[in-house]
Amino acid sequence: MSQKKRYLLDEEQIPRYWYNIQADMTTKPMPPLNPATHQPLTPEDLYPIFAKELCRQELNQTDRWIEIPDAVREMYKYYRSTPLVRATGLEKALGTPAHIYFKNESVSPMGSHKLNSAIPQAYYCKEEGVTNITTETGAGQWGASLAYAASLFGLEAAVYQVKISYEQKPYRRSIMQTFGAQVTPSPSMSTRAGKDILTAHPHHQGSLGTAISEAVELAMTTPNCKYTLGSVLSHVSLHQTVIGLEAEKQMEMAGEYPDIVIACFGGGSNFGGLAFPFMRHRYEGTAPKATRFIAAEPASCPKLTRGEFRYDFGDEAGLTPLLPMFTLGHNFTPANIHAGGLRYHGAGVIVSQLLKDKLMEAVDIDQLESFAAGTLFARAEGIIPAPESCHAIAATIKEAQKCKETGEKKVILFNLSGHGLIDMSAYDQYLAGNLVNYTLSDDDIRKSLKD
Amino acid sequence: MSQKKRYLLDEEQIPRYWYNIQADMTTKPMPPLNPATHQPLTPEDLYPIFAKELCRQELNQTDRWIEIPDAVREMYKYYRSTPLVRATGLEKALGTPAHIYFKNESVSPMGSHKLNSAIPQAYYCKEEGVTNITTETGAGQWGASLAYAASLFGLEAAVYQVKISYEQKPYRRSIMQTFGAQVTPSPSMSTRAGKDILTAHPHHQGSLGTAISEAVELAMTTPNCKYTLGSVLSHVSLHQTVIGLEAEKQMEMAGEYPDIVIACFGGGSNFGGLAFPFMRHRYEGTAPKATRFIAAEPASCPKLTRGEFRYDFGDEAGLTPLLPMFTLGHNFTPANIHAGGLRYHGAGVIVSQLLKDKLMEAVDIDQLESFAAGTLFARAEGIIPAPESCHAIAATIKEAQKCKETGEKKVILFNLSGHGLIDMSAYDQYLAGNLVNYTLSDDDIRKSLKD
Repeated sequence: MSQKKRYLLDEEQIPRYWYNIQADMTTKPMPPLNPATHQPLTPEDLYPIFAKELCRQELNQTDRWIEIPDAVREMYKYYRSTPLVRATGLEKALGTPAHIYFKNESVSPMGSHKLNSAIPQAYYCKEEGVTNITTETGAGQWGASLAYAASLFGLEAAVYQVKISYEQKPYRRSIMQTFGAQVTPSPSMSTRAGKDILTAHPHHQGSLGTAISEAVELAMTTPNCKYTLGSVLSHVSLHQTVIGLEAEKQMEMAGEYPDIVIACFGGGSNFGGLAFPFMRHRYEGTAPKATRFIAAEPASCPKLTRGEFRYDFGDEAGLTPLLPMFTLGHNFTPANIHAGGLRYHGAGVIVSQLLKDKLMEAVDIDQLESFAAGTLFARAEGIIPAPESCHAIAATIKEAQKCKETGEKKVILFNLSGHGLIDMSAYDQYLAGNLVNYTLSDDDIRKSLKD
Repeated sequence: MSQKKRYLLDEEQIPRYWYNIQADMTTKPMPPLNPATHQPLTPEDLYPIFAKELCRQELNQTDRWIEIPDAVREMYKYYRSTPLVRATGLEKALGTPAHIYFKNESVSPMGSHKLNSAIPQAYYCKEEGVTNITTETGAGQWGASLAYAASLFGLEAAVYQVKISYEQKPYRRSIMQTFGAQVTPSPSMSTRAGKDILTAHPHHQGSLGTAISEAVELAMTTPNCKYTLGSVLSHVSLHQTVIGLEAEKQMEMAGEYPDIVIACFGGGSNFGGLAFPFMRHRYEGTAPKATRFIAAEPASCPKLTRGEFRYDFGDEAGLTPLLPMFTLGHNFTPANIHAGGLRYHGAGVIVSQLLKDKLMEAVDIDQLESFAAGTLFARAEGIIPAPESCHAIAATIKEAQKCKETGEKKVILFNLSGHGLIDMSAYDQYLAGNLVNYTLSDDDIRKSLKD
């Protein structure tokens, strides 16, 4: 048995500010554009969709630190700090000289990092007198967190869940319903966007892009209703920086600094949340190492490793502003992998710019490799990781194995974005040998980008 | 929104000793008996079944404090202290002047308190050169914890899971298998005991009593294999006292002392784990209040409220020693409630003696009331409780409502023994109106006690 070591912060060390990397970036992200006029968006253009404060945060490229409202910080204190854990069990199982750490976001009451942004989004909506909020969800980690946050602030929540996940993960739906949310499988016949998609593709299994279209439409056509998003947008990554800001202090407690920072990648918020506070040291000139930052995406949805950088819509129906991002095309329908939270065609604008500027890297992971990594991690550390997080673990294992070959004692830090207790059917299928990899040809990608 | 407040201990405050209430009890529990000779058991009599150190702990009525081995304490530090939380959301939802606190054991990597005893049991087995361990499990909280603890110490684990739970909760089975354990639905045809039960009752859906018979038989007929148990026995409650010992210090941090301590009740280990350290103050003459201790059992398995105090077997086939306990008869087959961990016919010997001596109370809770309480708690506190823990919540709500009537600001402390994320199918059925209560007539109980 290997000794376990974890690091927790005192309550007063829980961050009071989120870190806004946009203020520090040398090359700023290009502006989102109004799809009709192709003019750069102002916060006011976004007011019909999001709470006003979130619109301002979204486009804020000047303030390095954004104060966390007291009510939000109080809720953070309920489950934060999350532990930083030295993964000695995994190190031993791999026989690697690397020091592996993970930030355990799975201990949040909703089982993932998503609550970090659900709470402030619901809070700002409530503050502005909104009564109803709506959103999309894939695997349901975000939807469950938003449903809970809505119930905390007395808001009604309507969630569009990607149809394939709605069917694969009925228990996440039950969780959302237990918190009183309305859950609709998407694409549905309840919106114009959903009807159009279903008319064109009657057996469409849904994607985050389709569900976003429906939720945005609901928000735009319902009085006193705002839309909320679980990833991709810059204000979501901003809220998630509590992860990295805590990890920074906890790595100090451990007396180490990461050579490599790794997170799985759907839209970029858990990656940004962990990575941005460490990237800050580079901008400040205080980084003790030339840390590498690696986003781990599924091989079946490879926008970072095989997508194109360009303006694209954030949703399938083209209701959102145009965003400058690495994308597979907004009509791209990802394969039915169990990591539902990573089934999204595009990357957030900040991360896209960072990748373009070669300030970070990306790696793609096959579904089978992700579950092999997750199972190894579970046995070594006693936590069953979410299928999404398995991608970060697989990327970590790759790097730890390189260290084994070279003998280097690199310090690797990854984000355990959530647990997989609601995803046991996926592990079941994996253990029974019933999961497959999905491959995408260059032609598939070219075609999707042209559509 | 109500403010959340939780209390955590520093690492050095994590207990170094378990508290052995047997040493303090004025009326000691009567001895377990050898079923053949009816002579009081010695630790040596139990050596064929359990690790030797556990046999000694089981019958130890003299040492008040048992040192926690370093290797076990190291593992505790991985997830302990668990938070003590002031349930302000629940207080507000109930409009009660009571102060409600819960000890959140659901944050353990396996999602329940069971790991607190699985780790030392696997540890002592490993220390004695055992290679294989076996056990029973109901809902699977214990089986999952034991499977993980076995993998930690490099032991093979074979788990007999109550058949109805095996079918109701397939994901707990997957969790055990993910950790490499062999899982068999019980009663099975793989043991003499299982065959006998199935021959007599071909459609037997299993109970903890049947699964214990099978696991004990496997241990007794397999070289280098020991049996382990998740509740009922005194050494299991002993290990669980880490819960109450921590809660003691955490209540001090909160500046309060409980008027009422509540836990759900299957065999008694999570109840004893929380209650015994507070009962200690009574023996020491330091208790600032005449605290009430309430065990919450299911109305469909009411051994404490409607059972008989007498010697009985711990298992269905009669392979265990005779234990002096409140029992419904060892052939009692409980109704198929979702709280699988509470489906056991008897109570541990310590708790049975305490109840007989009126040093604690018991209350029975219907299935529908338990889920109503669990759903209310989930919405108020953001944690979906295990169906077992819902019984403690329901009992807490009863007491908090009395305070509302009388205006008393009582301090209530209950144990949230685990989360219900693997039990969402039960919540699904509850929300859909498909769950029922089960009633037992006095005749049913008389008949079961006579069998």
